[in-house]
Amino acid sequence: MAKYDRKMQDLKTRLSEIYDIDMMQSLLGWDQSTYMPKGGAEARGRQLALLARLSTERSVDKKLGKLLDDLQPYAESLPYDSDDASLIRVARRDFERLIKVPPSYVAEFTEHSSNSYMVWTEARPENDFRKVQPLLEKTLDLSRKYGDFFPGYEHIADPLIDFADYGMKASSVRALFADLRAQQVPIMKAITAQARADDACLHGNFPEAKQIKFAEDVIRTLGYDFNRGRIDKTHHPFMTKFSLGDVRITTRVKEHFLGENFFSVVHESGHAMYEQGINMEYEGGPLANGTSAGIHESQSRLWENLVGRSRGFWEFFLPRLKEIFPELNGVSLDTFYRAINKVERSLIRTDADEVTYNLHVMLRFDFELQLLEGSLSVRDLPEAWHERFEADFGITPPDDKDGVLQDIHWFAGFVGGSFQGYTLGNILGAHFFNSALKAHPEIPDEMKQGKFETLHSWLQENIYQHGRKFTATEIVERATGSEITIEPYINYLKTKYGELYQL
Amino acid sequence: MAKYDRKMQDLKTRLSEIYDIDMMQSLLGWDQSTYMPKGGAEARGRQLALLARLSTERSVDKKLGKLLDDLQPYAESLPYDSDDASLIRVARRDFERLIKVPPSYVAEFTEHSSNSYMVWTEARPENDFRKVQPLLEKTLDLSRKYGDFFPGYEHIADPLIDFADYGMKASSVRALFADLRAQQVPIMKAITAQARADDACLHGNFPEAKQIKFAEDVIRTLGYDFNRGRIDKTHHPFMTKFSLGDVRITTRVKEHFLGENFFSVVHESGHAMYEQGINMEYEGGPLANGTSAGIHESQSRLWENLVGRSRGFWEFFLPRLKEIFPELNGVSLDTFYRAINKVERSLIRTDADEVTYNLHVMLRFDFELQLLEGSLSVRDLPEAWHERFEADFGITPPDDKDGVLQDIHWFAGFVGGSFQGYTLGNILGAHFFNSALKAHPEIPDEMKQGKFETLHSWLQENIYQHGRKFTATEIVERATGSEITIEPYINYLKTKYGELYQL
Repeated sequence: MAKYDRKMQDLKTRLSEIYDIDMMQSLLGWDQSTYMPKGGAEARGRQLALLARLSTERSVDKKLGKLLDDLQPYAESLPYDSDDASLIRVARRDFERLIKVPPSYVAEFTEHSSNSYMVWTEARPENDFRKVQPLLEKTLDLSRKYGDFFPGYEHIADPLIDFADYGMKASSVRALFADLRAQQVPIMKAITAQARADDACLHGNFPEAKQIKFAEDVIRTLGYDFNRGRIDKTHHPFMTKFSLGDVRITTRVKEHFLGENFFSVVHESGHAMYEQGINMEYEGGPLANGTSAGIHESQSRLWENLVGRSRGFWEFFLPRLKEIFPELNGVSLDTFYRAINKVERSLIRTDADEVTYNLHVMLRFDFELQLLEGSLSVRDLPEAWHERFEADFGITPPDDKDGVLQDIHWFAGFVGGSFQGYTLGNILGAHFFNSALKAHPEIPDEMKQGKFETLHSWLQENIYQHGRKFTATEIVERATGSEITIEPYINYLKTKYGELYQL
Repeated sequence: MAKYDRKMQDLKTRLSEIYDIDMMQSLLGWDQSTYMPKGGAEARGRQLALLARLSTERSVDKKLGKLLDDLQPYAESLPYDSDDASLIRVARRDFERLIKVPPSYVAEFTEHSSNSYMVWTEARPENDFRKVQPLLEKTLDLSRKYGDFFPGYEHIADPLIDFADYGMKASSVRALFADLRAQQVPIMKAITAQARADDACLHGNFPEAKQIKFAEDVIRTLGYDFNRGRIDKTHHPFMTKFSLGDVRITTRVKEHFLGENFFSVVHESGHAMYEQGINMEYEGGPLANGTSAGIHESQSRLWENLVGRSRGFWEFFLPRLKEIFPELNGVSLDTFYRAINKVERSLIRTDADEVTYNLHVMLRFDFELQLLEGSLSVRDLPEAWHERFEADFGITPPDDKDGVLQDIHWFAGFVGGSFQGYTLGNILGAHFFNSALKAHPEIPDEMKQGKFETLHSWLQENIYQHGRKFTATEIVERATGSEITIEPYINYLKTKYGELYQL
């Protein structure tokens, strides 16, 4: 409808400016983590704050709201999944969420977060929870306040969960996690009662450059496009993007341990292939992003675990790895496969295997709800962590450093909504993979030949291309034909680990 | 005066925002040249244009003009060299220049420049001047228009020259260059009549990592602060800055030729030490920049040539270089010194030695004036280049690629004001060095011991710290006690090359 052309153009121009400012924030952040000399820190903080302000000003501009109102009849005249209707719908959802939060709150939270993060970087190595306790108390307070900007919630965590995983609530996540827990704990107990798997073959001396080269070759084969991305080193690996044409990942390398860099790169390439796969028509607007934390994590975990830790994958790649590291020549596929799937109860979430990982997440998720509800105080958190950890894992964290202080999330963001996405990702990764296999039963055989196009194309078609056009719920239904369910994930764990550990 | 406090604060906030937006443009540009995958180009162009617009909007904001007017009595009540008076004075100078240029012109020029640059990157390797000719014609037209925004000039190039080298005019540069030419050409002729110096020792196989490590160690000794900078590789070396705490340089390495990376790194470190040396109190405002193209170049050329190509310098560093490259063990200091000071008539400005370099610059400077005056047409430029080059150097460029197409300047910026700074830098580098030596006759002996603190401190004290507080003319007068003069430079050339070539 021609009468809306000018307004659509105006909308796109405004959204493109917000998008580009956000992308530049990502670039400043990437440089800060990769190459910035320490002398650059102060100005960088100032520059990031400026961009955050410029983005917020534009995102809550009343003229944007008016434009969205004016365009509503146009959106309603179009099919739900048309690009224009989707752009208006998603832009409106963002706008309505953002205008509920006063600018003074945003400024206060941003400054507090950055302050809290700085103190956490000192407190963690010093194993000093008390140092960050007052800051975490304020974070909790601010997180509750955030919830209160969205009255009518069922649980105070709901607005925070919805922020990361649109459409989910504390009650729905809780129900899903309870089912999962009931099924996953017995698997873990059965395995950890056995002797530990041997992963000696992953330990040795593996020069950094060779490790990175191998991982690069692998993810190029999986479908990561190096014309639109690159790998750099950081303290903590991450994926970031400056446009759909520039989606970068980072890694860290341990020369004495093969597993660190490799699985990290494959994991981040999963996030990156999702972003690289978004319809290029959406570039420069809010549709050009992954749709939720859970769907994003499903892609990283699918490639990392269901592909990268599968026997078929290494049937193809182990011989190639041996060419690069001849010291692995005596290692059989079985030995290697068992090594990369070693299950053990360990302290650190990000290092955890597939069988124990979700328990780390559930612990944090439950604590977030309790903290927000007020049934647990920040002061008592370290003690509660120790108790719960012992109950869930049967081991006691020796300190807070590798206990409550281990994750950045609560010290640089909200308490609430920060962790459920990881387990949703595990569940959904298996769910999607299962559907891809139903559609293309040849995928496992192709993997054994180092071919990943069928799988990549299915994901591209069913997930990647849509960006934020569809919500997580819609994506799951369209791609799998069902609601989110833990069944494929539990089946996957039972089959894989049942075979590995003769359960 | 307390009544101006709030206004000064307002001014500083506004200027800081402009500064940070400009610094972010530099970061985006740095990433584009160092690490950006090619897929990022389109969005990067869009993002750079957005920042340019945000900067311009703020720089010509009427409220900024009003604030500067309101603060004028305050500035006049202060000593000329007080920080506040200087900030107001420099901000006003920038503001008054920028408001004369209409935003539509800025947008047109920016778009045209970027377009012209893209075509030049193809035309140069293809040796196809005709491909860029219409674009260069438009650049010339736009450059004339720029001049016309500043009526009352003596020569139409004056506003463009003034833009890069505040206080200079076509007539003053022309006079200076005429004197220089009269003295420098006989030196060149006397040398090039002799057999060429032998620089075989600089050619061989010198691995990149070792070359870069050596150059890093050298500039750390000179005074470049790696806590506030770093080195990366690019196609063309440059210095850039994202704050006074983050001043980076880039280099390119030829593994078969020692001279390329080393002198480039020392040159760029000269630019960088200038920026790193600016008073940290000026961070976040217009005083936190080098004061002119000529003064900037004086610092890069001083360190590159007067220090880095001196005998004393290599008395200390050649033994260190030999530790890294033992194949140099048989090379005497004399042989090495002659090699790095080889004089030859060559095609490329950036590769030219000290004796011939300025002739490359004068040729371009004269052409800029003729083009702007209309006495030379763009169409006739390649032919004119060939003729003049033959007359000046006695050799004929075999093509346009290494002739008129060799420099980026006219294809990504104005015709006018682009080149004089290089020769002003050569002249001033020697002028400053001469004054430093008068104040500290121990400097040459210190250099032989690898000590550069006295020299660095003198530059810091007399040049670096002031940023833009003083104009180039004021800096020269304060630091040397005289106006700009070619005498120290000619004396330097005569002494050094007289001895080297027994003139």
